[in-house]
Amino acid sequence: MTVGVCYFPEHWPRQRWERDIEQMAEAGLEYVRMAEFSWGRIEPERGQFDFEWLDEAIELIGDHGMEVILCTPTATPPKWLVDERPEILQEDPDGTVREFGSRRHYCFNSPAYREETERIVTRMAERYADNPHVAGWQTDNEYGCHETVRCYCADCSNAFSEWLADRHGDVDALNEAWGTTFWSQQYPDFEAVEPPGPTPAEHHPSRLLAYYRFASDSVVEYNRLQTEILREINDDWLVTHNFMGHFSTLDAYDVAGDLDLVSWDSYPTGFVQDRREAEATVEELRAGDPDQVGLNHDIYRGALEQPFWVMEQQPGDVNWPPHAPQPADGAMRLWAHHAVAHGGDAVLYFRWRRCRQGQEQYHAGLRKQDGSPDRGYADASTAAEELFDLGPVDAPVALLHSYENLWATNIQPHAPEFDYWTHAGTYYRALRRRGVQVDVVPPERDLDGYAAVVAPTLYLLDDALATRLEAYVEDGGQLLIGARSGEKDPYNKLPDALQPGPLAGLVGATVAQHESLPEQVPTRVGYGGDEYEYRTWAEWLDADDATVQGRHRSGPADGQAAVVDAERGRGRVTYCGVWPGRELADALVGDLLERAGVTTHAPLPDGVRIAERDGHVWVTNFTDAPVSVDVPGGAAWIVGHERVGAYD
Amino acid sequence: MTVGVCYFPEHWPRQRWERDIEQMAEAGLEYVRMAEFSWGRIEPERGQFDFEWLDEAIELIGDHGMEVILCTPTATPPKWLVDERPEILQEDPDGTVREFGSRRHYCFNSPAYREETERIVTRMAERYADNPHVAGWQTDNEYGCHETVRCYCADCSNAFSEWLADRHGDVDALNEAWGTTFWSQQYPDFEAVEPPGPTPAEHHPSRLLAYYRFASDSVVEYNRLQTEILREINDDWLVTHNFMGHFSTLDAYDVAGDLDLVSWDSYPTGFVQDRREAEATVEELRAGDPDQVGLNHDIYRGALEQPFWVMEQQPGDVNWPPHAPQPADGAMRLWAHHAVAHGGDAVLYFRWRRCRQGQEQYHAGLRKQDGSPDRGYADASTAAEELFDLGPVDAPVALLHSYENLWATNIQPHAPEFDYWTHAGTYYRALRRRGVQVDVVPPERDLDGYAAVVAPTLYLLDDALATRLEAYVEDGGQLLIGARSGEKDPYNKLPDALQPGPLAGLVGATVAQHESLPEQVPTRVGYGGDEYEYRTWAEWLDADDATVQGRHRSGPADGQAAVVDAERGRGRVTYCGVWPGRELADALVGDLLERAGVTTHAPLPDGVRIAERDGHVWVTNFTDAPVSVDVPGGAAWIVGHERVGAYD
Amino acid sequence: MTVGVCYFPEHWPRQRWERDIEQMAEAGLEYVRMAEFSWGRIEPERGQFDFEWLDEAIELIGDHGMEVILCTPTATPPKWLVDERPEILQEDPDGTVREFGSRRHYCFNSPAYREETERIVTRMAERYADNPHVAGWQTDNEYGCHETVRCYCADCSNAFSEWLADRHGDVDALNEAWGTTFWSQQYPDFEAVEPPGPTPAEHHPSRLLAYYRFASDSVVEYNRLQTEILREINDDWLVTHNFMGHFSTLDAYDVAGDLDLVSWDSYPTGFVQDRREAEATVEELRAGDPDQVGLNHDIYRGALEQPFWVMEQQPGDVNWPPHAPQPADGAMRLWAHHAVAHGGDAVLYFRWRRCRQGQEQYHAGLRKQDGSPDRGYADASTAAEELFDLGPVDAPVALLHSYENLWATNIQPHAPEFDYWTHAGTYYRALRRRGVQVDVVPPERDLDGYAAVVAPTLYLLDDALATRLEAYVEDGGQLLIGARSGEKDPYNKLPDALQPGPLAGLVGATVAQHESLPEQVPTRVGYGGDEYEYRTWAEWLDADDATVQGRHRSGPADGQAAVVDAERGRGRVTYCGVWPGRELADALVGDLLERAGVTTHAPLPDGVRIAERDGHVWVTNFTDAPVSVDVPGGAAWIVGHERVGAYD
Ligand SMILES: [Mg+2]
Ligand SMILES: [Mg+2]
Ligand SMILES: [Mg+2]
Ligand SMILES: [Zn+2]
Ligand SMILES: [Zn+2]
Ligand SMILES: [Zn+2]
Repeated sequence: MTVGVCYFPEHWPRQRWERDIEQMAEAGLEYVRMAEFSWGRIEPERGQFDFEWLDEAIELIGDHGMEVILCTPTATPPKWLVDERPEILQEDPDGTVREFGSRRHYCFNSPAYREETERIVTRMAERYADNPHVAGWQTDNEYGCHETVRCYCADCSNAFSEWLADRHGDVDALNEAWGTTFWSQQYPDFEAVEPPGPTPAEHHPSRLLAYYRFASDSVVEYNRLQTEILREINDDWLVTHNFMGHFSTLDAYDVAGDLDLVSWDSYPTGFVQDRREAEATVEELRAGDPDQVGLNHDIYRGALEQPFWVMEQQPGDVNWPPHAPQPADGAMRLWAHHAVAHGGDAVLYFRWRRCRQGQEQYHAGLRKQDGSPDRGYADASTAAEELFDLGPVDAPVALLHSYENLWATNIQPHAPEFDYWTHAGTYYRALRRRGVQVDVVPPERDLDGYAAVVAPTLYLLDDALATRLEAYVEDGGQLLIGARSGEKDPYNKLPDALQPGPLAGLVGATVAQHESLPEQVPTRVGYGGDEYEYRTWAEWLDADDATVQGRHRSGPADGQAAVVDAERGRGRVTYCGVWPGRELADALVGDLLERAGVTTHAPLPDGVRIAERDGHVWVTNFTDAPVSVDVPGGAAWIVGHERVGAYD
Repeated sequence: MTVGVCYFPEHWPRQRWERDIEQMAEAGLEYVRMAEFSWGRIEPERGQFDFEWLDEAIELIGDHGMEVILCTPTATPPKWLVDERPEILQEDPDGTVREFGSRRHYCFNSPAYREETERIVTRMAERYADNPHVAGWQTDNEYGCHETVRCYCADCSNAFSEWLADRHGDVDALNEAWGTTFWSQQYPDFEAVEPPGPTPAEHHPSRLLAYYRFASDSVVEYNRLQTEILREINDDWLVTHNFMGHFSTLDAYDVAGDLDLVSWDSYPTGFVQDRREAEATVEELRAGDPDQVGLNHDIYRGALEQPFWVMEQQPGDVNWPPHAPQPADGAMRLWAHHAVAHGGDAVLYFRWRRCRQGQEQYHAGLRKQDGSPDRGYADASTAAEELFDLGPVDAPVALLHSYENLWATNIQPHAPEFDYWTHAGTYYRALRRRGVQVDVVPPERDLDGYAAVVAPTLYLLDDALATRLEAYVEDGGQLLIGARSGEKDPYNKLPDALQPGPLAGLVGATVAQHESLPEQVPTRVGYGGDEYEYRTWAEWLDADDATVQGRHRSGPADGQAAVVDAERGRGRVTYCGVWPGRELADALVGDLLERAGVTTHAPLPDGVRIAERDGHVWVTNFTDAPVSVDVPGGAAWIVGHERVGAYD
Repeated sequence: MTVGVCYFPEHWPRQRWERDIEQMAEAGLEYVRMAEFSWGRIEPERGQFDFEWLDEAIELIGDHGMEVILCTPTATPPKWLVDERPEILQEDPDGTVREFGSRRHYCFNSPAYREETERIVTRMAERYADNPHVAGWQTDNEYGCHETVRCYCADCSNAFSEWLADRHGDVDALNEAWGTTFWSQQYPDFEAVEPPGPTPAEHHPSRLLAYYRFASDSVVEYNRLQTEILREINDDWLVTHNFMGHFSTLDAYDVAGDLDLVSWDSYPTGFVQDRREAEATVEELRAGDPDQVGLNHDIYRGALEQPFWVMEQQPGDVNWPPHAPQPADGAMRLWAHHAVAHGGDAVLYFRWRRCRQGQEQYHAGLRKQDGSPDRGYADASTAAEELFDLGPVDAPVALLHSYENLWATNIQPHAPEFDYWTHAGTYYRALRRRGVQVDVVPPERDLDGYAAVVAPTLYLLDDALATRLEAYVEDGGQLLIGARSGEKDPYNKLPDALQPGPLAGLVGATVAQHESLPEQVPTRVGYGGDEYEYRTWAEWLDADDATVQGRHRSGPADGQAAVVDAERGRGRVTYCGVWPGRELADALVGDLLERAGVTTHAPLPDGVRIAERDGHVWVTNFTDAPVSVDVPGGAAWIVGHERVGAYD
């Protein structure tokens, strides 16, 4: 377990570097990430390279006993390159070019840019092939940030047609798979299928889903181009990429397949402001939401089923959310412990020093712009001191998460409030409220060994997945499936069979009706002797071969089945046909965990979370008041924002 | 009175058709509408026609004793055609092309598309010229849906110039009629007048109104191209088009002039969500608003002053509004009766079966995607059984509605809340609350025979219309005129005379001031001894030759006249210079009906409406509770959502 | 002090002019402004001029003893010119052309349009060179209205590159000054720097600020082209331009340098609706906000430190705000007195007569469209009668206002609510609540002679300005500096030193942290024994050489310094590190004025303001109830909307 920092020596005078790097070492930092936006500095004109400044910075870092993570600088092609090869720029759906002047302005499918990428990555990797201080590489930076996964340029149009041809072979197969008879949308050939531009009415959902898949695959392919070069030059390097939080357009699991290590960038007080339905509370503005952050920790840990890194950890106030409140005292230390508890092996703060120029001047660092320590510096030093080595997290429960389901439900949410993340988060939060560790993994993952599995929604479904889930339950698994499962086939068409399609046999019920409801409609559902609220989504179930555990108690649905379960072999499956409110989610998840024999805690208060890793238990308190929680071992609580409890 | 359905045999395997059609017949359906999006199936490549599937479907339907309404398939030109003649695509004001991938992507003024239209309509009509099962045709589908009446392409620019040249003859006449001296907007020739593109400030209101008129006329002309071909080939066919609800960019009265029958598409629980100012109540989410639907019934009945069809009747939950609540039990039957009470002669449910592909998978049918009956199926069967033949509606009151007034007030609403439909709806609702049938007709219509006429606003006014209204009143008519009448001349300019311009003589008053007010400003007006609220719009009247019946009681308007009336000949005219709140509208309309000797009911509760047709009275209950209402004859009420009361 | 009107003879038949002009003279009007949109009338085809109508109108006005302000007609290039030279049109950032059809569609940097401007201005000025009735000229009309200061066309791109080359000489100097190493934004040459177009992420703040400066300078240069022609032809003419209220994209101080007289266009009941954070109260909808209007009076008086004109005074209801309430009785007279109290020398009502054509038909005039008097006519006559000649305003306090600070804080507000105008208005309102006259001047202005100076924010700061402020205080000045001062250097980069940068020595403190907070976060700060609320922005101060006068009492800031002050030489400086709520602003400003020995009134109620000019005191009451206020001399109050109190 270690702590590090992101550093931009190119932003500061050479004479300052030694003092900076000395202070990093003093703070106990072990890793320094560099160079992710340095192309313009490394190659100020085509073919004129200047690596000496970077050589020197690496040398200094090595001299102080720290290691370097280098980045390929492809997120920011310089102006001379854009002027020379303007076709590398991305385009909006209406053809507007995404111009130079910020970052991520290149197209993943541009042959020209792939050529330039190969050139700069090779050159840079060769430069540091034998450098003993370079531990590894981050490819590019935050793929897809600023809505750049999906591009609509001519190169993308060609690549999309090729991608479709590879998948379908024959255009009639595509027409059949998508169902293009609807509204006379038949395609005469693959070239005729373009990225989805501006149309009078909404797009064909099968075309949109294909385009979203294609766009994500384009990033995977582009990243692989980089990882292959790096591995060829030095295959001892750790190769990683820094993903983002609650990021929706890129399949991180797919990209992760080409990495040695998954890392991500964690900004708790920003996330509660800009990627969550509920308005942030005052406490959350100060420390974030442990479940929102935790879900991302668990996705990225789940990606390779191994410890992850936080490649960028919020160091103080940041520039990009609507507001920039100062984090609570100690929050920067709390976040490091919280990450480690969820399986993080390293936490690198972003950035060393507040930047004097450009778009991120309002982003704090561990040091202020004049070099003096900022609020995060002491927190980072403390965390560096407190952390020790640990084995991996061993989670008893898996939560199934799929980017394709996210895309497909976003294409047809059928209610403005139907947000994939919020719906999945309802189940995740209920699990974490009981102090249970959760692997967040794709549905294709091997589920053997999980005592329980929660699938908030399995929207797109084929027989193969249904069969695997059946086997899991038959073998003794405890499975909880949420609403909208089995609505669609993998091409985003309705199957012949009623929902949940291929899962109907396992679940023992079909969906007679579904409806979506605005907030003003009162909703009630009975379950286990109590009545609960639900929200947004309701299904009315016909239970052919299952026990009705819950019934609707409101609206035209009154009396219809809403929750059913069934024993299958040595296991049991529950299907919940509504988006449960918090209390119903607690009840469903509590019953599941009990059935599965998973050790749980009494439901924890908001903001307080328990997590076990390698025999140690973390209790993290994201609230502004001390709390008392009964933990295994009955340890006494220290008043304060968090407690790193290490009791065996 | 009959019931039918919309069917897409091309979406289903051939072997399923017989079962589907058999079930239609079993349900008592009599009409099947088909083929409106079938061009890609009928002509998969240029000149390669495949009509056999459609021949067969028609044959099967005929075999089961039902009749077919065919549609010209022009709403969805296929991809091969778009690729061959891309100039047929529409353009946004900023030149963005409305691309292939949904529907309605063609321009009404495209010479290329008119050529293709002629080709496909002729070919298809000839194919079925002698088919005994084809009762008639629907031209295209929902002209203008997805904001497609107004296009901004080069073909439209040329056509607009020609249309203007036809109207004005000389460009100086246009400059004079519009008043282009303002801001130096003089046009040197007709070619210089383009569709209104992006400009720094708002457009000239006369230019906008001309463009809106032109765009609507373009659809009329395009539709006429189709109706003429159809009539030439077989003039026994019923020719119709399916209009939409609360639709604002197309003058339905003008299109109707070329039709034998007017039909429209009714989606009650969608309309309360997406085309009404007030938020939908829970009851309205389940059954819709009878007055919102009724106003449209009455517009389309009024268009040709003969019974209309509901060509698409909501069959259950639908895909396009924000939310998709399940309709109340029985709602699909209620809507059929409500349509018939308002003068509908046929109700066709849309669609037979939930579609497995494309954009409308979330739209219910009478049957589910697996072929089993959905909630609407029983309702449709019951309605088919209950309905019987009736004569036309004989309405004692006319409400004057004009698309040109709608366009002109939308161009200069002078308050964000001034919505033409909502304002007109205030008067319509007050009439329907008294159980009175209302013809909603254009101001040009002959008003003889109406006991009373309500004109919510006569914004654009010329002497001819003023003269006709004078004659109506002189001859004993009872006329109620609402605010903003006579503000403009037909070119959307202020007349020399103060408002109500040419109506000042009839009304006996002029408008001294008008003002628009946000909601937070309290408003009061006295009328008939009581005080009432009004909203959004206030005029201060100078009554030269009229009796002041109401005065302002708030703000700087305090004491000014707000409602005046005057006897003229054997009739009487009332002018109301405010947008009345519900209670004031009730009072004004109540007084009008009393004066006119129209039989009324005591004001009905919300959601409950009475309508008489051909000696039968319908009482429809759109609420979720039984109601008791005193009806003529004093019949007892059956508890339930609605009662079809047949007492002589 | 005089009253006038804006007149458009070209909109009315010739035979009506004499009556109109006679009525103007009867009302006591002295100035008539004309011709600002008349190009199409003056030159209907290239080279074919028709000035006779204007000659005649001027003659008639002169005959009635009034004088004419003519306008250059460049705000509305006619259609024939646009068709001939379409390159004069402006472009949006994405390349969309701002087309013909409204006004202000030309680009300030278009060489073609500058040529046409020179041609028409010369021609027109020569025509009236010796006309005795023409007192002066208004250049163009409302530069920049409808967001037209910033254009993104090719001409602007070239001009921007040249402007940058002039400023920086060498592109490396630009790269250094902006800090383009960040995100590899180095420019290879000046041609590579384009107007800021659509980019994936936000723009470099130094590039944006440069573009905003350049765009404002382009208007200055364009205006100078006109003023030089006018002066060359007759240098006795008064040359002015009519600015707008709370206008943010043009540096009015810079334009004013080329004028003899500054004028502006005042629409009190519009401004409270469309350019203020707080929702308008009912009273404000009727009469406006005296401080919002007053701030603009004081900016335009401050621009040349001499009396200003109101070139357009709201005459009644207007067309462009969301709502158009009727002004209160007497409001049109109140506004004239209020303007004069703030240093206005003339008030011209806009317009003479409600226009029958084009975009402004819903805009009242002093007369209605039929020529009869409208509500403003009597008010204007009364004002004309009551007003008498006065010397200039002598303000004891300066408030420092800078368009560059406005632009830079808008580029990085760091909170959606951080609005420069609202923040500055907090301090301005506190000053006006004490009845003190305020010069609103740029920070570069000589401050000698001001008893006190308030700088709401000095965001961009260099050593020179810091030195001048130090000298002001050392010499006995009383200075109050608000939050966010000294955050940036003049190129919008963070300086090395902590905030307030070059002001740290004067202030005696640095900013340890800053944060921005949404409304739901409770805030408290102690000052002078009381506790107050603040909003949106908080700094935590380290007071090295200053006395802490206020401390935070909420959040993680609790206990940190928030307000400090220090004696320097014979003066004193206070720094307030929060955006004060109304009460804290009152306390800070009250203490400042007391220290400075400025005579003040007890805090005035909202809507009531006192202003002294040339020995006379105006008490203006913008509320709907009579008020009693203790004024110097203890005069009794007349009940009503306002009182023009003249007591020595
Ligand atoms: Mg393609
Ligand atoms: Mg044209
Ligand atoms: Mg340039
Ligand atoms: Zn691309
Ligand atoms: Zn067109
Ligand atoms: Zn330009």
